[in-house]
Amino acid sequence: MKIKYELTKKDNNARLGKIYTNHGTFETPMFMPVGTLANVKTLTPEQVKATHAGIILSNTYHLWLRPGEDVVKKAGGLHKFMNYDGPILTDSGGFQVFSLAKNKKKDIKEEGVYFKSHIDGRELLLTPELSIQIQNKLDSDIAMSFDECIPYPADYEYAKSSTERTLRWAKRGKDAHQNEKQSLFGIIQGGAYEDLRKYSAIETVKMDFDGYSIGGTSVGEGKTTMYKMIDDAIKYLPEDKPRYLMGVGEPIDILEGVERGIDMFDCVLPTRLARHGNAFTKEGKINLKNAKYKEDFSPIENDCDCYTCKHYTKSYIRHLITSNEVLGGTLLSIHNIRFLVHLTEEIRDAINQKNFQEYKQKFIEKYKNNIH
Amino acid sequence: MKIKYELTKKDNNARLGKIYTNHGTFETPMFMPVGTLANVKTLTPEQVKATHAGIILSNTYHLWLRPGEDVVKKAGGLHKFMNYDGPILTDSGGFQVFSLAKNKKKDIKEEGVYFKSHIDGRELLLTPELSIQIQNKLDSDIAMSFDECIPYPADYEYAKSSTERTLRWAKRGKDAHQNEKQSLFGIIQGGAYEDLRKYSAIETVKMDFDGYSIGGTSVGEGKTTMYKMIDDAIKYLPEDKPRYLMGVGEPIDILEGVERGIDMFDCVLPTRLARHGNAFTKEGKINLKNAKYKEDFSPIENDCDCYTCKHYTKSYIRHLITSNEVLGGTLLSIHNIRFLVHLTEEIRDAINQKNFQEYKQKFIEKYKNNIH
Repeated sequence: MKIKYELTKKDNNARLGKIYTNHGTFETPMFMPVGTLANVKTLTPEQVKATHAGIILSNTYHLWLRPGEDVVKKAGGLHKFMNYDGPILTDSGGFQVFSLAKNKKKDIKEEGVYFKSHIDGRELLLTPELSIQIQNKLDSDIAMSFDECIPYPADYEYAKSSTERTLRWAKRGKDAHQNEKQSLFGIIQGGAYEDLRKYSAIETVKMDFDGYSIGGTSVGEGKTTMYKMIDDAIKYLPEDKPRYLMGVGEPIDILEGVERGIDMFDCVLPTRLARHGNAFTKEGKINLKNAKYKEDFSPIENDCDCYTCKHYTKSYIRHLITSNEVLGGTLLSIHNIRFLVHLTEEIRDAINQKNFQEYKQKFIEKYKNNIH
Repeated sequence: MKIKYELTKKDNNARLGKIYTNHGTFETPMFMPVGTLANVKTLTPEQVKATHAGIILSNTYHLWLRPGEDVVKKAGGLHKFMNYDGPILTDSGGFQVFSLAKNKKKDIKEEGVYFKSHIDGRELLLTPELSIQIQNKLDSDIAMSFDECIPYPADYEYAKSSTERTLRWAKRGKDAHQNEKQSLFGIIQGGAYEDLRKYSAIETVKMDFDGYSIGGTSVGEGKTTMYKMIDDAIKYLPEDKPRYLMGVGEPIDILEGVERGIDMFDCVLPTRLARHGNAFTKEGKINLKNAKYKEDFSPIENDCDCYTCKHYTKSYIRHLITSNEVLGGTLLSIHNIRFLVHLTEEIRDAINQKNFQEYKQKFIEKYKNNIH
């Protein structure tokens, strides 16, 4: 079956909901950890599940290049291949083509995008149909449409023609989609232009996808513009389908997204920060390499229920990180993912109690974005 | 309390026994995984325990430099620092001083060894007393005497004077030892000289340690010489104390050691092999990078009971390893450690049934040392 979205409560625009999939049900708003190459970096599936993440994301572009979608299909699909029986969403590969192509060079044509592999420089063409065919074989629970992520800034003419092409690509991908158990989300583009966001939303919704993503944010446009991009699109999305804000994982951005009616978020931030020794806390990020933690025998957060905080001190994690021991990044990844998932749990509680605004203000007052 | 060794059965010289420690009891022969910097590389303590390793080793030299023994002591000792409540043995730092000193330069004097840190080139002096004081603070269950690992080959005069100095160092370390709950093992040296091995064994045993290690093997002397080094020393060791062969982890060497009466083994081999994509199997080592595993959806070993073999295919592990995903090394480390621990389990069963020789021959017939 396709996924089913159930809207259970609203607090202004913030939504409490549930998504039913063939691999289990999860509540929304939800943060999705990223498992780029069929694993959330350095973590076992059990460690990922212990963070209570309801769904994870894996990257079509990366799996296409390594090990190849046919290997995954022969393994019985991505769930079996990576030993993860919970819900999985795959992206379209579009973002990676634009950000990872060798020398950042690519040639965008009507048929698709020509570029060179970031691994071996091999010339490749990714088309809307191929993206969907790969995702069909990966057999994720949710597939994403192939789109162009418009750079910021972009002039109006370019943004308009790109937005129109992304709509044509969405249609082609939808027509090519052939996996009855897999849901397909459309992606709203339009750059920073209000009328293009509206146009993209209305036209994408007409195609009747199983959910909608707001794409092309967090490409360096600044927070105010990013929030406006959401505002400009989300009002045209149907209430009975999930909304997903791609690539967003800063706690304050999650709160701003939820306030506007977003249900799903993903970001490599928690695992990437971890590998550099950083941890989320309710008072902002901290860097465990800081000498002041050398003899700090308290956990990262006293009231955090994650595996790391229940068993390890800042002193020990600092020792691992400064000694280049991988386990340090593993322990921080567990904490950071749990931090964001826990944030969405608190958000859900707040929406349920109709005090989301108050919760958001209190969180932001304490939280500072800087690493200190 | 100090450790207690119980010899429960003998099959010729092979010994089945038990070691009681303040952090639990384990059976011998036993393989010890190495947790160099207060963690078995990339593994959580739970993952280590699931391999049924009865005791782990951690490195005094490394912990002395990072994070420093005082930090570990303030944390409440090594067990608490690294969240591992099972038995821990610490080595003396001697081997690392000789093998890791910057530019391999060191100056061996009666008082100890002068050398430069492999991290920052800082000039350091490690003495028998300091090695023991550091280990006292780390609060491991078993500490090791500070010794010189004689290079191979070494001329007789050098080997003799070094062996005598190691005996003086053993005495100084024993006198400096001040941790009532910590046991202390003596180390037999003597190079490849039969009379020096005998002399070292007899004189070390006179000092009455809680156990004895045969050191200075596996320094490139070849298998025949290595086994003879054991033969030349072990006959002078008391039956009522455990015997430990340092740095040995090749399956066949473990079997040869057990045959001669060794109870404990340690080696970085299972984790180091893992990081390079290699796995132990009963038919010898295999390298998962090999293209033939690309679509091999069977586990490393069908009858292995480890976490990795129960949940992952060669195809998936190959994908992780060739994509430089750390989880690949984690999964292989789990398998490789379990392989060696399981080998000692089978060895114990064989001794118990008095058919160790038969077991050993059958194992060796199947097993090939080459990586293929």
